Amino acid sequence: MNFKSDNAAGVCAEVLAAVNEAAGPSAGAYDDDRWSRRLDAAFSDVFGARCTVFPVGTGTAANALALAAMVPPFGAVACEAEAHIHVDECGAPEFFTGGAKLLLVPGEHGRLTPERLAAGLAAHRGDVHQVQLAALSLTQATEAGTVYAPDQVEALAGHAKARGWRVHMDGARFANAVAHLGCHPGDVTCRAGVEVLSFGAIKNGGMSAEAIVVFAPDLVEALRFRRKRAGQMPSKGRFLAAQLLAMIEDGVWLRNAAAANAGAQQLAAALASRLLHPVEANELFVKLRPGEPDRLRAQGFDFYDWGDAGSDEARFVVAWDTPAAEIAALAAALQQ
Amino acid sequence: MNFKSDNAAGVCAEVLAAVNEAAGPSAGAYDDDRWSRRLDAAFSDVFGARCTVFPVGTGTAANALALAAMVPPFGAVACEAEAHIHVDECGAPEFFTGGAKLLLVPGEHGRLTPERLAAGLAAHRGDVHQVQLAALSLTQATEAGTVYAPDQVEALAGHAKARGWRVHMDGARFANAVAHLGCHPGDVTCRAGVEVLSFGAIKNGGMSAEAIVVFAPDLVEALRFRRKRAGQMPSKGRFLAAQLLAMIEDGVWLRNAAAANAGAQQLAAALASRLLHPVEANELFVKLRPGEPDRLRAQGFDFYDWGDAGSDEARFVVAWDTPAAEIAALAAALQQ
Amino acid sequence: MNFKSDNAAGVCAEVLAAVNEAAGPSAGAYDDDRWSRRLDAAFSDVFGARCTVFPVGTGTAANALALAAMVPPFGAVACEAEAHIHVDECGAPEFFTGGAKLLLVPGEHGRLTPERLAAGLAAHRGDVHQVQLAALSLTQATEAGTVYAPDQVEALAGHAKARGWRVHMDGARFANAVAHLGCHPGDVTCRAGVEVLSFGAIKNGGMSAEAIVVFAPDLVEALRFRRKRAGQMPSKGRFLAAQLLAMIEDGVWLRNAAAANAGAQQLAAALASRLLHPVEANELFVKLRPGEPDRLRAQGFDFYDWGDAGSDEARFVVAWDTPAAEIAALAAALQQ
Amino acid sequence: MNFKSDNAAGVCAEVLAAVNEAAGPSAGAYDDDRWSRRLDAAFSDVFGARCTVFPVGTGTAANALALAAMVPPFGAVACEAEAHIHVDECGAPEFFTGGAKLLLVPGEHGRLTPERLAAGLAAHRGDVHQVQLAALSLTQATEAGTVYAPDQVEALAGHAKARGWRVHMDGARFANAVAHLGCHPGDVTCRAGVEVLSFGAIKNGGMSAEAIVVFAPDLVEALRFRRKRAGQMPSKGRFLAAQLLAMIEDGVWLRNAAAANAGAQQLAAALASRLLHPVEANELFVKLRPGEPDRLRAQGFDFYDWGDAGSDEARFVVAWDTPAAEIAALAAALQQ
Repeated sequence: MNFKSDNAAGVCAEVLAAVNEAAGPSAGAYDDDRWSRRLDAAFSDVFGARCTVFPVGTGTAANALALAAMVPPFGAVACEAEAHIHVDECGAPEFFTGGAKLLLVPGEHGRLTPERLAAGLAAHRGDVHQVQLAALSLTQATEAGTVYAPDQVEALAGHAKARGWRVHMDGARFANAVAHLGCHPGDVTCRAGVEVLSFGAIKNGGMSAEAIVVFAPDLVEALRFRRKRAGQMPSKGRFLAAQLLAMIEDGVWLRNAAAANAGAQQLAAALASRLLHPVEANELFVKLRPGEPDRLRAQGFDFYDWGDAGSDEARFVVAWDTPAAEIAALAAALQQ
Repeated sequence: MNFKSDNAAGVCAEVLAAVNEAAGPSAGAYDDDRWSRRLDAAFSDVFGARCTVFPVGTGTAANALALAAMVPPFGAVACEAEAHIHVDECGAPEFFTGGAKLLLVPGEHGRLTPERLAAGLAAHRGDVHQVQLAALSLTQATEAGTVYAPDQVEALAGHAKARGWRVHMDGARFANAVAHLGCHPGDVTCRAGVEVLSFGAIKNGGMSAEAIVVFAPDLVEALRFRRKRAGQMPSKGRFLAAQLLAMIEDGVWLRNAAAANAGAQQLAAALASRLLHPVEANELFVKLRPGEPDRLRAQGFDFYDWGDAGSDEARFVVAWDTPAAEIAALAAALQQ
Repeated sequence: MNFKSDNAAGVCAEVLAAVNEAAGPSAGAYDDDRWSRRLDAAFSDVFGARCTVFPVGTGTAANALALAAMVPPFGAVACEAEAHIHVDECGAPEFFTGGAKLLLVPGEHGRLTPERLAAGLAAHRGDVHQVQLAALSLTQATEAGTVYAPDQVEALAGHAKARGWRVHMDGARFANAVAHLGCHPGDVTCRAGVEVLSFGAIKNGGMSAEAIVVFAPDLVEALRFRRKRAGQMPSKGRFLAAQLLAMIEDGVWLRNAAAANAGAQQLAAALASRLLHPVEANELFVKLRPGEPDRLRAQGFDFYDWGDAGSDEARFVVAWDTPAAEIAALAAALQQ
Repeated sequence: MNFKSDNAAGVCAEVLAAVNEAAGPSAGAYDDDRWSRRLDAAFSDVFGARCTVFPVGTGTAANALALAAMVPPFGAVACEAEAHIHVDECGAPEFFTGGAKLLLVPGEHGRLTPERLAAGLAAHRGDVHQVQLAALSLTQATEAGTVYAPDQVEALAGHAKARGWRVHMDGARFANAVAHLGCHPGDVTCRAGVEVLSFGAIKNGGMSAEAIVVFAPDLVEALRFRRKRAGQMPSKGRFLAAQLLAMIEDGVWLRNAAAANAGAQQLAAALASRLLHPVEANELFVKLRPGEPDRLRAQGFDFYDWGDAGSDEARFVVAWDTPAAEIAALAAALQQ
């Protein structure tokens, strides 16, 4: 029973149907097809604001391309200390930006605040001997499974803009965040000051497409070229576009995310005081009891150890398609 | 009727079936799945030599990653003057290598020879003031729609190795080349000295997967990291692997390519003396008559103008699934 | 007797005196000293236009930094086919720009024209699959020892600007060009549309300082950071600044260059019809007679073979301090 | 009275004499001169081991080139949290390496230990999703003005080598460290496992030359090209070489450093319990009393505030040529 990651979940029916439909005879190459041409309008509808959408093959590519469009090679990106862009992308942001730096600020339950940013970057002078802070990257939902509310995003984006920084959001689990908040997706992105969103679809029932959603028109042009140059512009672009359309056109993305979130809440209820962070999306970080990790694994539950070696901390992730029976079984096992 | 490019062709039944099969419930992430684990063995069977396979999303990524593993940032890659890596990848090789240069050598009907390499690079001194030649990149089939025979590849690779250069092959239409030659695929790759092959699948009935096939074990390690860092390691890697397996495990790749080649031969017969290059794969380069491009387009044939403006040169490409009726119609129209 | 290169010439008295003067006790670090602070004004006086000056240690650094400020990583620089930035900088422009490409256009006697640019780049489509032309780099004096007149620079810069390209001038031998033209230095730079000049001093009697002279204010900011990041901002910046001031404040640069040019004219008179290019600066390109290279070397003259092996072509360079007796001796030897 | 930095100190007589001597008529270009040719032997004598020396124009260039030769673009360098390469080089290491990361480990009084490295990097998994640790960079003397003893360097280098990392030493104040230790310079470098040393000369009475001293022969070849490509190979290389020879051939480097260290000890005696770190080289980090910074500045002493704003911490640096009277005056002022 897989609670390791939503990375490996199945593909939802709507996405699979769209892929099959797009497989038919010849269409235009390089985004000159009827799916790709609909992307901007479809996402603009969802976000309630004009945006330009670039499909890419991985979240790493989405994040790194977005940051490369925002910061010069001598620039720096402020992000949370555990941000995926720092910890899990093998230096992709440094590669795509031409060597910009990430400056790390510890959050609380994964969330940054303007105060934490100010304190964490106080020692950065910004003179000619140092890289120049040029962007803020937020993760929504955060690496701790928590979610930024609209006013929190707005405050952080305001802090960034007052300093001339661009604002990026890594939304690998953006759908889970919006499903939790119940807000309009624009409320935590374009209306709150986010200029580029890495819109995650793969963990949420997609197959092989993520989207860079660009709300800042001045960043569009460079991204077209950077995407091609990065080998992220497939000739049969219709397969990426079709997946993304299937995800967003009938609310599939929110339904899938809500299912995952609900499963996580079921587990959260079983874990109660043992939770390390509030459960607001589909991830749970837990302090297990000594011996419990082994016992759970012996019962067939697969999950990641977390934190320091020997800490008995663990991460459980519920996917959009995690079987209800498996969730119930894990909840029961955790309450023993 | 589309004779512009095989880039936009349909997806063959075998590939589509494989994608659907892989869409089922949760599997391991990041190539830890039963499809990805079979890739190396399946390609090793086809090529008759141990190789390591990295699936990626575009041919541009395959080429640029391969070259980045082969040459240092202060290196240079020798290639034909019209090579895709120079003309059509928006500088991806320069990006992935950290700024290596491509040194261009004009071929004959798209083919390089050791003599042409020697002459074309004679002025390159290679002292500390110049980039260091470190790789040769061949295109198979060539940009002129011709094909290197095994002894031609061997001679070129021998020339390269005598100078300490690595040998790369851009095989965006590798299947068409092998189908034309009727040889063992190893004869024009590993047995002839090619160390990394960009194995094209998308133009040939695939959906979204190309493969980097690595015959030189010392290049494998760096490619693992470079691939991840480039955002070319998808979490649901099974969808790329499944496509590639479907392509190669039952000879689908050669059947599809043979179909495209046969269509091209049918057109070649109709064009005879008007051909600019021998037709050996699925592309035709033609000198049309004044007014003929417009007439053909008026009849519904879509294709690219080629060569200098006003030259009436054109390129026609036959895909694996170009309808027989359309090929016949074009052949007839060209003979009017 | 050295006619190989002005690269290795001596240091003129004025520059040496300035270095000695600057060696005294402690001054401000990192350009916070009285020499560095005078640079902008001194160069602005010479060029008759406000400019910002960044001293660097080599011409390669000057060129590569200038281009990096002008073109994005997915950009391209149009330049003459033999340009130093392409042939002799070990890929520095590709390194500093993050992988931009140089697109080569053959000149006539080293000189580009708008017509040659248009013809040489006609095949470059500039769509998303190709790098984007973003700058023109001219070499003054050219690699063939010729010089662009003001109206020629203006026409080329106009051609560039009409296409949205920035204009760079590699002035490794800029002083020789201006001394030849007898014009105001602004006439072939800022007034003619050049936006950044790599001002060469080292070949012309300097010791270790070249200058990036920036006429386009929007390029200044990025250059400050790129220079530091490239390790081209020395802590004791006064030594670079003092050299540059000594060069330009009393016309030393033009006197030195005129001396070198005069020596070259003396040799040109002796070579007459054997010259491969007009002699307009301090370099001569010559077709020698069979056996003559060996004979000259046996007489103690040192110079570079040029052109293809066995062509008996040679390059002679006269430096600002080449002894008159050596010039006379070479002239005599060439007339035998 | 300048106690801000040794960066801005004067040039010692020996170096200045050497520069003047090298200024004479024409010599070979690009290190083909009698000074440059002697460098390897001279440094090999000093270090008691064969080494190859590359002169460059700044410490930033020395560090960044050294690291670029050691780590791949997907690599990481472990260093102390306040290391100059992280804090004060505007991202030069990221630029030169093609985007490698620096992983920061807090030291004690600026010094790392194997235990601190192990603890600080425990969370770094090193799988394919992360950059690969490939080098350790030590600073000698440290950023806190302390010095690594030979056995400390040896233990750290051993820790690195056991993990397959290369070992770099940033020796901007290497002379001060050796003068303090009284050991053979090889004892804290080549004999202790350091493979490349950035040998600082400029702060210590030099004018414009630093040296990359390479003890690991396999790193030499790439550095030749990277140095040229970085614009760090001046045509009149004799001026850099002559400075370095003057520094090391008669022990000037150690005499200058000893003078600076002695001045620092004089101030340390006056500061006693107010020192934040042991004084082992020529830098002092001090907790001043409220109001004292202003008072000292009013008395004409110039120095940097350090630590957090309002902390009253300060840094004083003594240079090789800081006048004895100024040191005495500062000592007196600090004891009031």
